[in-house]
Amino acid sequence: MFADIEHAAQRIQGEAVLTPLLENVKLNALTGGRVFIKAENLQRTGSFKFRGAWNCISKLDPAVNAGGVVAYSSGNHAQGVAAAAQLRGIPALIVMPEDTPEIKKANTKSYGAEVVTYDRATESREEIANYYVAKRGAVLVPPFEHADIIAGQGTCGLEIIAALAGLGVELDDMLVNCSGGGLTAGIALAFSEKSPKTKVHSVEPEGFDDYARSLRSGVREQNPRSSGSICDALLAPQPGEMSFAMNNGRLAEGYAVSEAEVRRAMRFAFETLKLVVEPGGAAGLAAVLSGKLATKGRTIGIVLSGGNVDPKLYAEILMAA
Amino acid sequence: MFADIEHAAQRIQGEAVLTPLLENVKLNALTGGRVFIKAENLQRTGSFKFRGAWNCISKLDPAVNAGGVVAYSSGNHAQGVAAAAQLRGIPALIVMPEDTPEIKKANTKSYGAEVVTYDRATESREEIANYYVAKRGAVLVPPFEHADIIAGQGTCGLEIIAALAGLGVELDDMLVNCSGGGLTAGIALAFSEKSPKTKVHSVEPEGFDDYARSLRSGVREQNPRSSGSICDALLAPQPGEMSFAMNNGRLAEGYAVSEAEVRRAMRFAFETLKLVVEPGGAAGLAAVLSGKLATKGRTIGIVLSGGNVDPKLYAEILMAA
Repeated sequence: MFADIEHAAQRIQGEAVLTPLLENVKLNALTGGRVFIKAENLQRTGSFKFRGAWNCISKLDPAVNAGGVVAYSSGNHAQGVAAAAQLRGIPALIVMPEDTPEIKKANTKSYGAEVVTYDRATESREEIANYYVAKRGAVLVPPFEHADIIAGQGTCGLEIIAALAGLGVELDDMLVNCSGGGLTAGIALAFSEKSPKTKVHSVEPEGFDDYARSLRSGVREQNPRSSGSICDALLAPQPGEMSFAMNNGRLAEGYAVSEAEVRRAMRFAFETLKLVVEPGGAAGLAAVLSGKLATKGRTIGIVLSGGNVDPKLYAEILMAA
Repeated sequence: MFADIEHAAQRIQGEAVLTPLLENVKLNALTGGRVFIKAENLQRTGSFKFRGAWNCISKLDPAVNAGGVVAYSSGNHAQGVAAAAQLRGIPALIVMPEDTPEIKKANTKSYGAEVVTYDRATESREEIANYYVAKRGAVLVPPFEHADIIAGQGTCGLEIIAALAGLGVELDDMLVNCSGGGLTAGIALAFSEKSPKTKVHSVEPEGFDDYARSLRSGVREQNPRSSGSICDALLAPQPGEMSFAMNNGRLAEGYAVSEAEVRRAMRFAFETLKLVVEPGGAAGLAAVLSGKLATKGRTIGIVLSGGNVDPKLYAEILMAA
């Protein structure tokens, strides 16, 4: 419900960063429109995920929930949960794929969390997480299938709309980098209430466009693979049940971007926007730069949803230019 | 005069970016204080220089000043002037050192300016600039020795103070990356009027700390060398006469940072702040991270004054970590 986002906005105030909504003269000139950039890479823990994690975990009582929290995550949710748990004073155990970028594992540990790794191809992260939940009497904090998580991510949309209202702008299109669909659902809910004429679109990596295909077919489609994209944050195997129930019928057409388009967007973010963006965080920018949608004369919002990228990968992308 | 900064603030509105004043949980934890980060790397043209350039050039009349403008610059002022002239509809010729990072030359040309290069060791940029001023009937836009330039840069300070007022914070220390001293003079003037208890400090590269030494001796000292620092934006040979007259007696102690400290700050900006900062733009951050001043329990402002860095240099710095 929309009111949940408003409550979440109160809850995160003073803990989450009110990230800037930026505009760039060169990007506008390139597109012929106005592109508004929500810089969630500047969010606490380096991605939007802290919003939902804190909205969920701040409700827990350290006296009651001494077993803490357990989460499974490719990395950004892990950091969000770890930081939120540390702030709340409860332990966190995070189940992460072995092939997660080192910076995400190290950062998760830096927030005091315990990290357990698993093989993305052969093991079930849900099973491992449930094992620790039972063993420790912990609370599971899922990455997107939870009303508090979705409401927390929705605060990102609320902030975009508020900043635009200050400029007298209503968006034609809002692009959201999409994995399980929690951020997308939260933002789409915020826009449906406060800016209903804006079309909200999912953006995914090519080959992992389960959301775009599910929106077309009306049922939750699976991705054929579970790894093999540079966008390590956007590899959920299929839309979440809860998020898809919210997004189906509410979202407009979904877009998919190639790895080359993502790399180009990361270079553009570095050189022109002066922002560090992880691959999955650059999907919406990649869609805009590669002309997946009409931009001329239009107002378009994108979310740079995270900046937790291995510096050596970024260096390689910059060197290859 | 302070009123000139207020007029400049009106003049740049809608053309310059009102850049965010950021805070980072990890940086605060590291320092034990609160560090406020003015992200001028997100400014139009990638550095604060557009402020002064537009404040100066927006006053010119294309009918009267058809000869356009001439400037000499190691790069950021060049881009600021080129973009401002393009916006005003007059030609710009920029005299740049041959060893300027390629990205700065290319960016300057991208704003429609003509670029003439010179040898930093053997030629005088002032002489070359004056030659073109006379030949074209152009207006010289100096990098710091001009009241309009200093007032324009001062708007950066005004914005910092306004954002802090919204948070109920007054800074103990304000660190300004310093070359000729225009930004420093503008910011120091703004603080002396609006936040007089804040101590404003210059930050320079080791070996190019003419400002710090001049503040100690009370006369304008020269740097022994004119090149050889990674901080290509901070190589003015000595304090400007006008800027030093404003800064002498108004600034507190100046700091100098080593190349290793700057590189470490650039890595920190990338990994933790998720911001792309050029070497000279990272000097204040380097001073904070390397403990040049007491930070525990204190409120400190820094300016990430520019982000126009060769991607390959940044890649090398990231790879070396």
